[in-house]
Amino acid sequence: MAYSAAFRCLTGCAGSYPLTQPLYRCPTCGGLLDVAHDVDALRDRSPATWMKLFDERYKRTVWPYGSGVWGKREWVAPEVPDEAIVSMDEGGSNLFWADRYGRTLGLDDVWVKLCGNSHTGSFKDLGMTVLVSVVNKAIREGLEVRAIACASTGDTSASLAAYGAAAGLPVVVLLPRGKVSTAQLVQPIASGALVLSLDTDFDGCMAIVQRLSADGVVYLANSMNALRLEGQKTVAIEIVQQFDWTLPDWVILPSGNLGNAYALYAGFKMLKDLGLTTRFPRLCVAQAARANPLFKAWSEGRSEVVPMKAGETLASAIQIGNPVSAPRAMLALKAMDGVAEEVTEDELCDAAARADRTGMYTCPHTAVALAALEKLVKKGLVEKRQRVVVVSTANGLKFTEFKVKYHERALADVTSRLANPPVELPPDYDRVLAALDRHAAQTGKR
Amino acid sequence: MAYSAAFRCLTGCAGSYPLTQPLYRCPTCGGLLDVAHDVDALRDRSPATWMKLFDERYKRTVWPYGSGVWGKREWVAPEVPDEAIVSMDEGGSNLFWADRYGRTLGLDDVWVKLCGNSHTGSFKDLGMTVLVSVVNKAIREGLEVRAIACASTGDTSASLAAYGAAAGLPVVVLLPRGKVSTAQLVQPIASGALVLSLDTDFDGCMAIVQRLSADGVVYLANSMNALRLEGQKTVAIEIVQQFDWTLPDWVILPSGNLGNAYALYAGFKMLKDLGLTTRFPRLCVAQAARANPLFKAWSEGRSEVVPMKAGETLASAIQIGNPVSAPRAMLALKAMDGVAEEVTEDELCDAAARADRTGMYTCPHTAVALAALEKLVKKGLVEKRQRVVVVSTANGLKFTEFKVKYHERALADVTSRLANPPVELPPDYDRVLAALDRHAAQTGKR
Repeated sequence: MAYSAAFRCLTGCAGSYPLTQPLYRCPTCGGLLDVAHDVDALRDRSPATWMKLFDERYKRTVWPYGSGVWGKREWVAPEVPDEAIVSMDEGGSNLFWADRYGRTLGLDDVWVKLCGNSHTGSFKDLGMTVLVSVVNKAIREGLEVRAIACASTGDTSASLAAYGAAAGLPVVVLLPRGKVSTAQLVQPIASGALVLSLDTDFDGCMAIVQRLSADGVVYLANSMNALRLEGQKTVAIEIVQQFDWTLPDWVILPSGNLGNAYALYAGFKMLKDLGLTTRFPRLCVAQAARANPLFKAWSEGRSEVVPMKAGETLASAIQIGNPVSAPRAMLALKAMDGVAEEVTEDELCDAAARADRTGMYTCPHTAVALAALEKLVKKGLVEKRQRVVVVSTANGLKFTEFKVKYHERALADVTSRLANPPVELPPDYDRVLAALDRHAAQTGKR
Repeated sequence: MAYSAAFRCLTGCAGSYPLTQPLYRCPTCGGLLDVAHDVDALRDRSPATWMKLFDERYKRTVWPYGSGVWGKREWVAPEVPDEAIVSMDEGGSNLFWADRYGRTLGLDDVWVKLCGNSHTGSFKDLGMTVLVSVVNKAIREGLEVRAIACASTGDTSASLAAYGAAAGLPVVVLLPRGKVSTAQLVQPIASGALVLSLDTDFDGCMAIVQRLSADGVVYLANSMNALRLEGQKTVAIEIVQQFDWTLPDWVILPSGNLGNAYALYAGFKMLKDLGLTTRFPRLCVAQAARANPLFKAWSEGRSEVVPMKAGETLASAIQIGNPVSAPRAMLALKAMDGVAEEVTEDELCDAAARADRTGMYTCPHTAVALAALEKLVKKGLVEKRQRVVVVSTANGLKFTEFKVKYHERALADVTSRLANPPVELPPDYDRVLAALDRHAAQTGKR
């Protein structure tokens, strides 16, 4: 197995750099990097052989194949040895058969890939296991950094801190003071990360963390890091695997920084390049209407995403006006006959509530994707018999306040049409019985 | 496959009743029921054949074998057909290798079974899929109930409501008004359950829900229901399977109502009865010192658990003074050479923090089990080379407030020795650098 992968410039500058090199941008043009695999070497196995190998490893007990990411290691980071891998059961998440939800939209074949049912509660774990494992390998080979660092306030810092804790590697998280509550930070705090609350704004934090990484003091785990996308791309491969190596017609995912859109494309492309599939599913990138730079560019037929000031959205993780991976996402949309969609706060809230009533527990970002699906159905783009996969990016348990406020009808600009507040009653048998009857009449049995 | 299971009296009264009958207590003596399997019939397959069958099904795409519970259907509820099953990817949860945590205790081989990484975030899903599927089958066969009901405020109502929502079956949750916040109830509310807030106390709610079930209006999903234990027992089987069909030396689990302790025993017993194993691991049932009726009975050598008034504990789900399944748990302790342990609020908090710093994100109940392990090590009962499994019962994401208050040092009677509050700094490069150095010195690299 002489498989290999290296950093290369996304837009084609010459040069190839080892994955263990702390490198975040192309040294020539300053643009984004890509992880390029030696695809010819990977062609030494037939499509059937790859499928068999991945199926044999899936969720098994042999280290590191409990992980859906490392079960596909040759396609991800082939040169990381077992002993350097930092893994906590990534992937293998439920591809939820959203039968009842799909039927509310008149669709026959809707599935939701629950990536938030993971160790730290978001899809970020898929990429973080790769990043931390590669850094772990680099450290064993002599890289000297005092910590792995990021400036995130959300799922990225939670995931980074947990993987650092599992590996015994120091993690530092930088944040603007007073802008973030302890509750938002409690995962990295619990994981023992050094959480620095700086008397500046987010850009001020980024400036410091970037100088620290430029000086080689820290390794930067920020969202432009191409290593993370290598892990995230296994979502695409795993979805196809869970359908017994067949493609869905549509994949819909919520996106802000747009790295995950490119990662999905990279996964589907690898499947196609190596002959496991013959085409692409269509892609829909779903954005909140208040943070919709990709939607704007796409709907106006522009190939360049113009940065905007993002407005406040309940889908806080995708509240991004200047997406780092915009050029990557444009490639993905083009290759996958993709569309972009935008949804309002009211639309995303009702979509979440509708899905929850069929057994899901939807985070606001997943709700953006569901609301986008509802729009694509109305536009006739998604048809009754098509197989649709919605990618759920985080666990609803991270968004208790969002759920509570919706059902208490306390969200601004949101009607809460499907609010289901508790019913207050005296402790009277007949009154309870009557309430049961009303509820049964409203919801209908099966 | 003429496998079968039926309700029988736990203490030996004559009579056997179909699992689809709405039956919560022995009709003869009023005591607890057990699900009794036709073990002789199950002996038609060799131990190796069962292992092979369960391995082949594990996490596969053929319905309903994505579920770790239904992958062992012959041992659980053999007469439920595919089309009646209501399943959302139960089981198959990470058996987390707690290497770094174990080493902090001087142990070589500690594992944490993360049952909280599940659809609704607790181990209750394992039992609820069985209960809701059996009720679903019963309804298809003519049982008329207006809803499935419970009086729980926590994980049970969350799980019941989600499975009801997925199946399209009405669910009703009864609660004392003013005692429970919307946040605690938001999962069943989101799932569209009828949440009745009654102007009475918990006993008043139970009285009404029991009358409703006695009258056949609702099916009672309360914790004495033996069907739920059949699903929960698969945790034991799955742990052994994840160790390639070998037993650990110890299993430690937090318990309040004590059903889960018996369920574990039932799983290990089935493995032994069918020849897949030859002995039992030792069991430790861990309780909060403020709600420790089992610990009291066990440490005083009594075989009867005397009800007590439970004091307030952070481990709220096991804050139970009069455990329903006490007689069941006593059987388990006796058969498994078991011990009971109790831990203080301070002990459970520090155990959680210690574990979190090694990559976990521990709920307060799991913390009770970890703190109990720490005590067993000090007592010399658990030895360095023994293989220990701690059962984690819920997802830490359900307990944000517990984490925040610990790290803000805001918990009564808790010292928060491992609190890790954010460090406030001016946006100064050198000050950040110095903070990094201090942190590295404190935590130590690898």
